[in-house]
Amino acid sequence: MRPAHGRAAQRRLRPIGFVSVDVSIVGGTGNEGFGLTLRLAAAGHHVTIGSRDAAKATASVDEVRRILGSDAPVDGAENAVAVQGRPVVIVTVPFAGQAAIYGTIAEHLAPGTVVVDATSPLGSAVGDKAWHVLRPWQGSAAELAASLVPDGVRVVGAFHTVAASALRAVNEDVDEDVLVCGDDPDARALVGTLVDDIPGMRWVDCGPLETARITEQLTALLITINRRYKLKGAGFRIVGRDAWGDPGGLPGGLPGGLPG
Amino acid sequence: MRPAHGRAAQRRLRPIGFVSVDVSIVGGTGNEGFGLTLRLAAAGHHVTIGSRDAAKATASVDEVRRILGSDAPVDGAENAVAVQGRPVVIVTVPFAGQAAIYGTIAEHLAPGTVVVDATSPLGSAVGDKAWHVLRPWQGSAAELAASLVPDGVRVVGAFHTVAASALRAVNEDVDEDVLVCGDDPDARALVGTLVDDIPGMRWVDCGPLETARITEQLTALLITINRRYKLKGAGFRIVGRDAWGDPGGLPGGLPGGLPG
Repeated sequence: MRPAHGRAAQRRLRPIGFVSVDVSIVGGTGNEGFGLTLRLAAAGHHVTIGSRDAAKATASVDEVRRILGSDAPVDGAENAVAVQGRPVVIVTVPFAGQAAIYGTIAEHLAPGTVVVDATSPLGSAVGDKAWHVLRPWQGSAAELAASLVPDGVRVVGAFHTVAASALRAVNEDVDEDVLVCGDDPDARALVGTLVDDIPGMRWVDCGPLETARITEQLTALLITINRRYKLKGAGFRIVGRDAWGDPGGLPGGLPGGLPG
Repeated sequence: MRPAHGRAAQRRLRPIGFVSVDVSIVGGTGNEGFGLTLRLAAAGHHVTIGSRDAAKATASVDEVRRILGSDAPVDGAENAVAVQGRPVVIVTVPFAGQAAIYGTIAEHLAPGTVVVDATSPLGSAVGDKAWHVLRPWQGSAAELAASLVPDGVRVVGAFHTVAASALRAVNEDVDEDVLVCGDDPDARALVGTLVDDIPGMRWVDCGPLETARITEQLTALLITINRRYKLKGAGFRIVGRDAWGDPGGLPGGLPGGLPG
């Protein structure tokens, strides 16, 4: 039996009123996607791990069960299958593969689906440095994503600044804010509730999707800081004298807008 | 007599080894510049307030003395005069006036001078929104500044994310990190020591000047967050599981590189 210590472990008792969401994570076998899978499954959400390779997805499901227990609410499938019928789809893929991945899943996204794009347009996508940033024609990778999905799909940009290492340390709180932007307030708030279900994490409503032009670049800034200070898991908190000293005290939005 | 409460007030007893730096603040009568003047003077540095209008600078000197006491180490002058012979010059002006201001001070900057540019290229400079960002041809306002000063002047980008309201509340700690970038490590570290002399503040070494392309944009992000949550003073802290839980624990650089 694994020791249950810290708030992360305690949180596996669901609060009254908790609503489990069916989440698909495209690129869920990657470092960031796997970390999010662990955290959302640990919070009680049902997570479908998507991969270009169904066998890889299955291997990641086994790994999640090894870590969280055999009853962990997780399954796996090829990306196009993994997203079908899921109200929330989180896309965690490198920028170099982003457009191609959207090409394979777009037709399977129902109107109303909340697509959370976590892509950072790092220079490494074209062989340049990971701490340099590319500027997509649409303004941001999130807006590029929005141009690739059917009308009615609600794209949200989030999780760019969250370290995979912090997500994977499931017995520790994640001491980071998640900057959430998107043109649909209900979609932002829904993503916000998923964020707030991860112990220690707090979502910050950053308004319209175009704000991703700024938030996506923060990945490159954190890579710079991690390299310079020999860290792995640097992230951000929004602070300030009239801001929220207590991470729990943020006036976020209310959840809502789940497609029927 | 003003009440001396909090660390901000306590810090006016200088620690052993404290070295006072002569700092000029171009745009020191503005909100951000005046806040920095207050904090640096309270820390014991000598601050010369620069303004396009010498009379305005003098009025701000009087205001500093009213707040900090008649012995506050501060004087004022027209910008071109204010920067002469000062090892550190902080430029806090709106983007719309940046190039013109550098045009008036450039010839008065001696080689070795550390110029701290705090300009954020906000859309408001051209009548667009303040939460939109312009992209200077050079990549950032800090790099634009670097193109406008003589060879040997060391440009550092810093203070973009620091709320003027937090700086002006001199009896409170400033619960914010300052993201510092520049091509000269000694110049970054020197600015870092000035930051660390402000109670509660911590500097984060963000490497080369081109990183300002990211850090400058954070002003627009904070404006978005301030509007959305009805705040005035939102800022950033770098956090993370292997980062520095204790703001005092950051492994910053050592001071050095003061021009002789």
